[in-house]
Amino acid sequence: MRALFTTTILLLAQLVVPQSLENLKLMPLPATMQLGPGHLLINQSFTVAVEGHRDSTLDRGVQRFIAGLSHETGMRLKATAGEDSNATLQIHSQQGSEAVPQLGEDESYELTINDSGAKLSAPNPLGILHGLQTFLQLIQTGPDGFYVPMVAVKDQPRFAWRGLLIDVGRHFIPLDVLERNIDGMAAVKLNVLHLHLSDDEGFRVESKRFPKLHQMGSDGLYYTQADIRTLVDYARDRGIRVVPEFDMPAHSRSWFVGYPELASTPGTYKIEPGGVYTVIDPTQDRTYKFLDKFVAEMAKLFPDAYFHIGGDEVNGKPWDDNPKIQAFMHSHGMKSNQDLQAYFNQRLQKILSKHHKIMVGWDEILRPDLPKSIVVQSWRGQESLAAAAQQGYSGLLSFGYYLDLMWPASRHYAVDPMSGAASSLTQEQKSRILGGEACMWGEWISPENIDSRIWPRAAAIAERLWSPQNVQDVASMYSRLDDLSWRLEWLGLTHRSHATTMLRRMAGVEDISALRTLADVVEPVKDYARFESVKGTWDFRAPLNRLVDEANPESETGRRFQSLVQNYIRSGCKDRDAEIQIRGLLTTWRDNNLKLKPLLQESFLLRETAPISEELSRLGAVGLSALDYLDKAEVSPEPWRMQQLAQADAAAAPQANVLLVVAQPVRQLIEATAGQTPKP
Amino acid sequence: MRALFTTTILLLAQLVVPQSLENLKLMPLPATMQLGPGHLLINQSFTVAVEGHRDSTLDRGVQRFIAGLSHETGMRLKATAGEDSNATLQIHSQQGSEAVPQLGEDESYELTINDSGAKLSAPNPLGILHGLQTFLQLIQTGPDGFYVPMVAVKDQPRFAWRGLLIDVGRHFIPLDVLERNIDGMAAVKLNVLHLHLSDDEGFRVESKRFPKLHQMGSDGLYYTQADIRTLVDYARDRGIRVVPEFDMPAHSRSWFVGYPELASTPGTYKIEPGGVYTVIDPTQDRTYKFLDKFVAEMAKLFPDAYFHIGGDEVNGKPWDDNPKIQAFMHSHGMKSNQDLQAYFNQRLQKILSKHHKIMVGWDEILRPDLPKSIVVQSWRGQESLAAAAQQGYSGLLSFGYYLDLMWPASRHYAVDPMSGAASSLTQEQKSRILGGEACMWGEWISPENIDSRIWPRAAAIAERLWSPQNVQDVASMYSRLDDLSWRLEWLGLTHRSHATTMLRRMAGVEDISALRTLADVVEPVKDYARFESVKGTWDFRAPLNRLVDEANPESETGRRFQSLVQNYIRSGCKDRDAEIQIRGLLTTWRDNNLKLKPLLQESFLLRETAPISEELSRLGAVGLSALDYLDKAEVSPEPWRMQQLAQADAAAAPQANVLLVVAQPVRQLIEATAGQTPKP
Repeated sequence: MRALFTTTILLLAQLVVPQSLENLKLMPLPATMQLGPGHLLINQSFTVAVEGHRDSTLDRGVQRFIAGLSHETGMRLKATAGEDSNATLQIHSQQGSEAVPQLGEDESYELTINDSGAKLSAPNPLGILHGLQTFLQLIQTGPDGFYVPMVAVKDQPRFAWRGLLIDVGRHFIPLDVLERNIDGMAAVKLNVLHLHLSDDEGFRVESKRFPKLHQMGSDGLYYTQADIRTLVDYARDRGIRVVPEFDMPAHSRSWFVGYPELASTPGTYKIEPGGVYTVIDPTQDRTYKFLDKFVAEMAKLFPDAYFHIGGDEVNGKPWDDNPKIQAFMHSHGMKSNQDLQAYFNQRLQKILSKHHKIMVGWDEILRPDLPKSIVVQSWRGQESLAAAAQQGYSGLLSFGYYLDLMWPASRHYAVDPMSGAASSLTQEQKSRILGGEACMWGEWISPENIDSRIWPRAAAIAERLWSPQNVQDVASMYSRLDDLSWRLEWLGLTHRSHATTMLRRMAGVEDISALRTLADVVEPVKDYARFESVKGTWDFRAPLNRLVDEANPESETGRRFQSLVQNYIRSGCKDRDAEIQIRGLLTTWRDNNLKLKPLLQESFLLRETAPISEELSRLGAVGLSALDYLDKAEVSPEPWRMQQLAQADAAAAPQANVLLVVAQPVRQLIEATAGQTPKP
Repeated sequence: MRALFTTTILLLAQLVVPQSLENLKLMPLPATMQLGPGHLLINQSFTVAVEGHRDSTLDRGVQRFIAGLSHETGMRLKATAGEDSNATLQIHSQQGSEAVPQLGEDESYELTINDSGAKLSAPNPLGILHGLQTFLQLIQTGPDGFYVPMVAVKDQPRFAWRGLLIDVGRHFIPLDVLERNIDGMAAVKLNVLHLHLSDDEGFRVESKRFPKLHQMGSDGLYYTQADIRTLVDYARDRGIRVVPEFDMPAHSRSWFVGYPELASTPGTYKIEPGGVYTVIDPTQDRTYKFLDKFVAEMAKLFPDAYFHIGGDEVNGKPWDDNPKIQAFMHSHGMKSNQDLQAYFNQRLQKILSKHHKIMVGWDEILRPDLPKSIVVQSWRGQESLAAAAQQGYSGLLSFGYYLDLMWPASRHYAVDPMSGAASSLTQEQKSRILGGEACMWGEWISPENIDSRIWPRAAAIAERLWSPQNVQDVASMYSRLDDLSWRLEWLGLTHRSHATTMLRRMAGVEDISALRTLADVVEPVKDYARFESVKGTWDFRAPLNRLVDEANPESETGRRFQSLVQNYIRSGCKDRDAEIQIRGLLTTWRDNNLKLKPLLQESFLLRETAPISEELSRLGAVGLSALDYLDKAEVSPEPWRMQQLAQADAAAAPQANVLLVVAQPVRQLIEATAGQTPKP
């Protein structure tokens, strides 16, 4: 095997067009990669050997890799990994990783594959774990067997902090669901799981010191301390840090159910929608005594060096309304509620520091009176991230990475931590931008649909945070994202399979093909439109079992149709292949309502979607008429066109909290019948 | 709530057409059932109360029911179940069940539902568990909400022993896969999990007394004793007994790897395909000393009163070839190897008896010298079951219930333990037939496809063993089986979802729609044809990742197409609705090969299916031609017809170990073009 690497270098010298690299479907794209002309067959005699440093994290990682490879190929491969110079894959780690993963640890690796074997080396197991994920993504099914192409990959992350926030406060997410999402994170080289563990609707961690927090502050759904230890170990095994967030002083009603003395507004509290709004009282010494003991307990439970205290969206009215708090502010010379929050943060920061934790908070906490060691997580904009960096603070970007806003992957992908306001920072200031986090806020998620809200879109953000800044090609991103999406299913993620059970529930019958046709071309409404639709009466207990809860944030069919229509129009309506596919889809949609209508009337969960189904069929019919004009190179009569455009616009409006995403491309077909070159 | 039952009786007096009962989709059908005119809405205020006897088994059963109901409806329902006279569902158990489920315990229950509430009562928790499953199957999605119809069910099983055998010897099946199959068993009221724990290819239970059994007698895949305890508890919680089988004296090569002194043929043994065939040496006292200690250990681990010793398929050649064994037989006056096996069984039976176990064995063990307490499980035919009952032995039927033979559900459904030779037994003899077991033999199963081999077909056998003998309507069975099949997905069974991942692996790409079209109309070859195809070189280590491993044993599309063609021809080719559907399917098939062909060439797993894809497209085209003749009421030219019939016959032949199931109905369409009334 020693000879392997000389040979490889020779072969790589003969290289190779960049387009072929795109066929590799790696996500995130490695920092550097070269492709050779051969490939390595993966058959049942595939073996792995580990040289150099060995530890249990590495060994378990290799066992998972072998199990994953067995699963992907359907071949049972040997689970052992001793030192064997004839093994197909040679792994070499120079040393061990930290016992608890640390921000900024070396995560680089080198992977070299030729037609007789492969070698993966890294300074430590973190890099090995990343390299094994790259190897799994390289597997192809070929005419002669499974194989990986001959490549030389030299890879390391662009940012050290690549996170996913999961809000388990508003809706509890069971441990096994978190675990499969951790597997998804590892697959795309994310390295921080940020758990938003408490909010108005629930406190989700067992506290032995203050048991009324989880007992009274939740609906009985919380993680025991044993659960947390299991989760932290599970994540650590995959090179992933777990950062806890306990949101203070706002978003904290669940604390007050058991401990009303912490609240700025006296009274009793319940876990229920639309209860009294209040925040923690920062003027009482007992508050800090409580937090000191609480942080002491949680600091032990969560070994990561960072501890997130929230700090966002403090509405100061409870402070304004409390005469004692007003008196306190006056006697301390505080001019605003921001001053009071800053006072709270300073005292809290000292408590964290005492317990050896570094404070992280949302951008509202940014005040010059906090030490420079803290980390500011920006949700309000890239400006606040840049401002933090200018003032000497470390920062994380989450603005632009909110998965709950139901944006397409491309929109997240376009947001770069170093773009916008950050682009004018000095090099030193830039170095304070540690990375970013995708955020899965929990108002509309359940264990059943959360995977579909996170995946595959989070992978586009993962690539933004890992790959070089100039990796920007959206078409390439989508091509690789589509591939990744089904590969993620091997990990047990349900972002695709959830549709079957959810649609069957709505339909109450086995044959859901027509319903699926409809579901495939709708997306949930964007941004905060769903909140607006309930006009302040959001009820976290309401079932999430409607079409909007099932529909993928980004419709693959919609995206494909949009792209077909663009190609067709750009070709001057001459691309026959695109036309055939467009016609096929339009025909299916035109005929779908007839099949679907009876089903929709029979189900209380589906009745609200009846108008959408009718619109889809209308769009199918009008799209076909438009195609007929374009086919014959005939200009459509203007009144017809105006009427159809108006109808397409009407079809694009939200109904039942979903959007019919094919309305826009059908509109483009109608516009094209005007006979001028349309702007796609 | 007390008034509920008087009201119900009045309402039920107004009854109701039997066809409506069929719409209820219950499986197995209850012993008696009446349907009322109203229904009970299931909304978020649904609650359960438990009166009378309470124990932890019952409580856990109720919690699972509430979780299941929450899952099916997507509504989070209250998990508590105290005594509450206003609860929607009142549960009343008279007393507790046995600590370990016993053969013949009362499993009856009564379930009454009206529009204001429901009551479920039973002598003990076993009946309550069954009644809760019935309730779950009754849930419908309606125009006003989820509901259960007004019914009065009085139900009990026809047979006390309703089993599923899973062979984990030939291919190891992990604990979680067994657990989800136990959930499936509970859903259809099966009550015995028979684990075939050892065979030539593997010994699958940790033995602390003889650790070389699992260590050397397996590929490292076995259940620890803790696993077994978990499994037994899991099953018991669901009213299911676990009967272990250790197959002796044949099917036992895995024992000899660690303990060659047990073998009739001296030598060393390995877990490998096609090794030396031998059997346990029944002439040595050390054999019985070993078995005494072994049974002592396993008898403790498996608390069920029954213990299966296999006893099947003893090829006596190793005995013939061993002079010492021949001498022993001679000195004991044994005339045949059957005599020697009987001697072995007698000594083994005494060991079992000493450890308080009742012996069960395959029909080969049936010899008058064994005590009448033993149970004979018949795999060779209904005659041997009847013979056993005549001789005073208890018996179980498995002949006709072999799931690995890939028969359609209807064929299993037609086999009744009391039919055939059993039908002429006296009432007393009949009472010795305890029931039966569906058998999932393990030569061609993996954790990935086993669910699809068991479900939904095992449910047809479950109904045969639970419901009254006159429940025989095959169309009704299939209508309910189709419904059950997708409901079983709520339990995590993968009998449908396995297709996606397996087809994607074969294809190596995301878009598998054309491949799915092909996969949907093939079935694995039947009976033992797959063994014949490998001509004695069956290798248990070979990957199970081909189309035959994915294809469902019974194609739903094939069955639907067959039924459409029959209806169409029976209508004198006048059923337009059937014709449209037939034409739609034929068109899809005709056009499919063009889409699929490039994919098939690119994958070594799919290339062998290329001729099948071509045949399917040909069948689609010729079926459409036949329809055109029938449409125009035109007789086809005889040469054309003869040629097409020959081609359809050729298409029906197995290729790549699968059968194209639409060949036969297309043949019927071709025959119909001859212009005479065809016999469908």
